[in-house]
Amino acid sequence: MTEERAASHQDHLDRLESAYQRLAEKHGYDSILIYSGAPRVHYADDQAATFRSYAHFLHWVPLPGLSHSWLWIRPGKKPVLWLHAPEDFWHLSPEVPDAPWVSRFDIRLTTETLPPALTGGRLAVLGDVSAHVAQRLGGEPNPPALVLALDELRVRKTAYEIDCIGEANRLALAGHQAAYTAFVAGAAELDIQLAYLGASRQRESDVPYQNIVGLNIHAGVLHYQHYDLRSPASYKSLLVDAGRSVSGYASDITRTWSGRDADPRFNALIDSLKAMQQRLIEDIRPGVSFVAVHHLMHQYLGQLLAEHGLVRCSADAAVDTGITRAFCPHGLGHLLGLQVHDVGGRVSPDGHPLPAPETDPALRLTRELETGMVVTVEPGLYFIRLLLDPLRETATGRHIEWEQVDALSGHGGIRIEDNILVTAEGHENLTRID
Amino acid sequence: MTEERAASHQDHLDRLESAYQRLAEKHGYDSILIYSGAPRVHYADDQAATFRSYAHFLHWVPLPGLSHSWLWIRPGKKPVLWLHAPEDFWHLSPEVPDAPWVSRFDIRLTTETLPPALTGGRLAVLGDVSAHVAQRLGGEPNPPALVLALDELRVRKTAYEIDCIGEANRLALAGHQAAYTAFVAGAAELDIQLAYLGASRQRESDVPYQNIVGLNIHAGVLHYQHYDLRSPASYKSLLVDAGRSVSGYASDITRTWSGRDADPRFNALIDSLKAMQQRLIEDIRPGVSFVAVHHLMHQYLGQLLAEHGLVRCSADAAVDTGITRAFCPHGLGHLLGLQVHDVGGRVSPDGHPLPAPETDPALRLTRELETGMVVTVEPGLYFIRLLLDPLRETATGRHIEWEQVDALSGHGGIRIEDNILVTAEGHENLTRID
Repeated sequence: MTEERAASHQDHLDRLESAYQRLAEKHGYDSILIYSGAPRVHYADDQAATFRSYAHFLHWVPLPGLSHSWLWIRPGKKPVLWLHAPEDFWHLSPEVPDAPWVSRFDIRLTTETLPPALTGGRLAVLGDVSAHVAQRLGGEPNPPALVLALDELRVRKTAYEIDCIGEANRLALAGHQAAYTAFVAGAAELDIQLAYLGASRQRESDVPYQNIVGLNIHAGVLHYQHYDLRSPASYKSLLVDAGRSVSGYASDITRTWSGRDADPRFNALIDSLKAMQQRLIEDIRPGVSFVAVHHLMHQYLGQLLAEHGLVRCSADAAVDTGITRAFCPHGLGHLLGLQVHDVGGRVSPDGHPLPAPETDPALRLTRELETGMVVTVEPGLYFIRLLLDPLRETATGRHIEWEQVDALSGHGGIRIEDNILVTAEGHENLTRID
Repeated sequence: MTEERAASHQDHLDRLESAYQRLAEKHGYDSILIYSGAPRVHYADDQAATFRSYAHFLHWVPLPGLSHSWLWIRPGKKPVLWLHAPEDFWHLSPEVPDAPWVSRFDIRLTTETLPPALTGGRLAVLGDVSAHVAQRLGGEPNPPALVLALDELRVRKTAYEIDCIGEANRLALAGHQAAYTAFVAGAAELDIQLAYLGASRQRESDVPYQNIVGLNIHAGVLHYQHYDLRSPASYKSLLVDAGRSVSGYASDITRTWSGRDADPRFNALIDSLKAMQQRLIEDIRPGVSFVAVHHLMHQYLGQLLAEHGLVRCSADAAVDTGITRAFCPHGLGHLLGLQVHDVGGRVSPDGHPLPAPETDPALRLTRELETGMVVTVEPGLYFIRLLLDPLRETATGRHIEWEQVDALSGHGGIRIEDNILVTAEGHENLTRID
């Protein structure tokens, strides 16, 4: 941790301490115990699945991957951290890092997987604990109203958190550069992925979400989950949607490139979508409804489809008939933080549900933007047979230039995604740092 | 799948069909339903942990990673495979492969995550299913005696399984070669790991167990679980314990190399341990107790410690006083198959527990060797402070040459591991293929 970040981390902990004090009082708890969680073993096996520490735990303790550990927050007192460090020659046991933040905690190394019995009033126990364990600890497991309020606390990021997301962006961008270089050199998806991991300095188990590395038609599978071991016969396109995690905070960046075998019309589409993405970002500022920016994306998509001759109708008609949604079925973006799809995106600041519009069920952020939010802006345009084919024989389908669609569909699709901080003045793009 | 393997896979399925018929009859079931399992989502998150399909499912269906799918075995009838293939534009849906084995199954693509109600007598439901789901399907979940008998069926490998493990060895060896090259070039642990993955053609999520890539002192952490992002100041040693999975079948290979900054005495220790490992393999044959070979390892370790001046006592004394166990606290090896620590290692062929000796609690294989078993042989020698330091001030500790130990402890340790098939004639080393 740099000195500057260590200083901002102190402010971050100050804010957490006073907020937890306020919320504990409001919800009637004397203290709050947060569990890190622990890895799960595969069924009938002795090998464990990947694990990530509970985000509310990481909100305080910047040690991602820490397991079997407990954090006890009592208003006005130093938080107690039971840090699980078994006497274990099979694994490298965690150690207390040499960092300023440790002095803010009463850290107790323990070989136990449960904290001692806690006394002192009404206790809330948060995290992946059974009712049985919570009862043994003398607490109430995950009170919904309290958890909702703590989620809300994560929506507006502190300077420390923004600094972490900024570094996660810088590291991920190095990965994207390496992925592009491997693509140009004719690599297979697996090798593009490994080049990304090497340059962004991370292992696959630590990525904030599974990297999407899609060549050609795979660029059109929104959450494409494989890495082909073999190089394809032709290189039309590459879509890489990949991030990095820094002290638990994620970046989430998508780039799309055309390859040596690309149709020139696909290049032109990428350029237009890039420009459109930057135009959408101009609208990011406090007080703006993210749903409105999402609708603007569809308006722009309609224009783009018309300009590039993919539809024969007006931009408005392309939106109204649902054509833009067949080309882009996902939302404009989402909150970003300790989780890639961070909490609080579909809830009002006072805890009421804000469901996605019926036309846009995949939209993960339906709130008004506020200073301190970090959001992704990620318009896309895809040739997805499952969505487009049903239109072919319909009235709506008559607006679509199927010859163009069929010529380009082997390129899969395009998505361009940056991470945007909402500031008092408007916004700051954390991804475009040059 | 090669033509040869496709042919042996048919024989494998023949064997499974008749064995399941026999066991269903013996345990009083009319049919057996096996669940593939499904990935779990991280707590309070929307990202999933890594997943592996249930091994008894993979025993029949060579599609690792397949989830939400079900296999129904009825004696005398074609097995029914409900292959979950959702209409999903977010992910690439699984497809029925173009391979001979599919004709052996009645494959039904489905978007449902549960099979239809099954009729026809008493049903056993195997896998990660709740009592509730099993009841809904009209079956009994995981009858222990039946599961134990099916585990036993996996202990002796068919020609098809041996062929898969052989290929898993060839691919892993390419990885080990690349890891060594990266080590010599001065790479960090992360880059050695990525080099391994690239050359063995796999992603981290697909490895049969988390690769151990330990530089210097990390070579002495038996299941070292990190990959350092930075290159160390000196290169004393590298231990790589890493495999590959082919159609679900694992290889599990360990190599240890000395680096440019190694103490020459460490080189000599590696050479001796390599020779000792090959000598131990000579004893692998049907009818031999694996516990006896494990004891032999300790005898050889005692000799090695004496020869290299690490102890001042006899080999026998080094074993009897527990010194060899402080230098090597793990077992000689384990069964290998659809799981890296395959089932059935501590159970007699007729289902009785065969616990590990009190002196060797970590030994995973306590049976008599039989033709068709694949076992690892992996002696080791480590400088583990947690085990050695307590001996310093004891009578036993007076036998140890602490100056030697302290000079070498920065090298971490050594392990050499091959995968050995037990044959009627004795054994075949699946790892040493040149």
